[in-house]
Amino acid sequence: MIVGTVMGSIFSTRKSEKLVGNKFMIVRPEKSMNTQGSDLIAIDIIGAGIGEKVLVATGSAARIGCDCADAPVDAAIVGIVDEGQDGMEVLGS
Amino acid sequence: MIVGTVMGSIFSTRKSEKLVGNKFMIVRPEKSMNTQGSDLIAIDIIGAGIGEKVLVATGSAARIGCDCADAPVDAAIVGIVDEGQDGMEVLGS
Amino acid sequence: MIVGTVMGSIFSTRKSEKLVGNKFMIVRPEKSMNTQGSDLIAIDIIGAGIGEKVLVATGSAARIGCDCADAPVDAAIVGIVDEGQDGMEVLGS
Amino acid sequence: MIVGTVMGSIFSTRKSEKLVGNKFMIVRPEKSMNTQGSDLIAIDIIGAGIGEKVLVATGSAARIGCDCADAPVDAAIVGIVDEGQDGMEVLGS
Amino acid sequence: MIVGTVMGSIFSTRKSEKLVGNKFMIVRPEKSMNTQGSDLIAIDIIGAGIGEKVLVATGSAARIGCDCADAPVDAAIVGIVDEGQDGMEVLGS
Repeated sequence: MIVGTVMGSIFSTRKSEKLVGNKFMIVRPEKSMNTQGSDLIAIDIIGAGIGEKVLVATGSAARIGCDCADAPVDAAIVGIVDEGQDGMEVLGS
Repeated sequence: MIVGTVMGSIFSTRKSEKLVGNKFMIVRPEKSMNTQGSDLIAIDIIGAGIGEKVLVATGSAARIGCDCADAPVDAAIVGIVDEGQDGMEVLGS
Repeated sequence: MIVGTVMGSIFSTRKSEKLVGNKFMIVRPEKSMNTQGSDLIAIDIIGAGIGEKVLVATGSAARIGCDCADAPVDAAIVGIVDEGQDGMEVLGS
Repeated sequence: MIVGTVMGSIFSTRKSEKLVGNKFMIVRPEKSMNTQGSDLIAIDIIGAGIGEKVLVATGSAARIGCDCADAPVDAAIVGIVDEGQDGMEVLGS
Repeated sequence: MIVGTVMGSIFSTRKSEKLVGNKFMIVRPEKSMNTQGSDLIAIDIIGAGIGEKVLVATGSAARIGCDCADAPVDAAIVGIVDEGQDGMEVLGS
């Protein structure tokens, strides 16, 4: 998994019917997680807000682990990282 | 998932019979999505046009989420991103 | 999927018995597909020749989409790209 | 799989219920494993400590191979690398 | 798949019981296969020796294609590349 920050969300009116009801969050990985700096779009099963640090699962884990095994989903926010912990310093965040 | 722009399409006459009926769209990821700038080829289940911003799912999500679980497909356009929204500014688009 | 050029093939006498009968093609992705320039090895279910532009599926799509779901295959040539089309200009090919 | 060093851990109070009971370890891949230097977050089924060199499996192998096939997990520590062996010199560690 | 050279092996005494009996080989991808130069750890179902050029499958293909579908394995040596063939010159090896 990676840790990133929720930067915003995007909307899609014309989309796969299997995606209806999902929010598409823009997640920017922490620098130590992705030195290439690539944002990704993840569904959100937790209810994260803009600016929050989140845990993101990618690949089949996002579908199968988030009860949407049949949906075209390859990334999902699966946790909100607690604030004020040592681990985030390790990440340089 | 990633957001990209449909740049065109390619045709393949000699192909896997499981791919018959699909269009192969060239998608260029937004810069913030892919600082390496790699285009990819995705099938299109939505009906996107050239120049449109689209949402692309990759990996097994493209097969299983797009009702072609048995086809050699690893990327699919699964939504068209609405125009004129704040999220796209976050992406620098 | 990506588009690349068949550069040659490699042979392996000692290999998984599930791979017997497959050809291992060296595919060089088009520059716009992979700015890192990494070649890959793909099985070929179409019958591509050296120098031809091909469509390559990667990941589980290569196994499951090519009727070799139990084989250790992670990339497959699944189509030959038609010559003389506009899409290839988009790719800068 | 890759080899990396456990740098710390992060906590997430609000998370998928399928993740309850897991520790989220920050793993920094050995330089020869990842010249891009990207940390990742992995669950730990072995009981690794900070500073230990570990073997990490990614993708569906982390879910299915770690008896959490239904959880949104895409990386797992699956072994602790023995100290003082030649292999680590090969990795430049 | 990729082609790489076996550089050595690593040992892990404390590991997932599903990994018992496997050797963990350090594989360095050929330069044309991976311009980023990242080594990876693969199980070996063929019996490759140090210095040999091998074919490596990654992702779910390594588990499912190597009769260890339930193990946390994401890369496997599935063939030894024959010596003295033209294909290796294409790879610049």
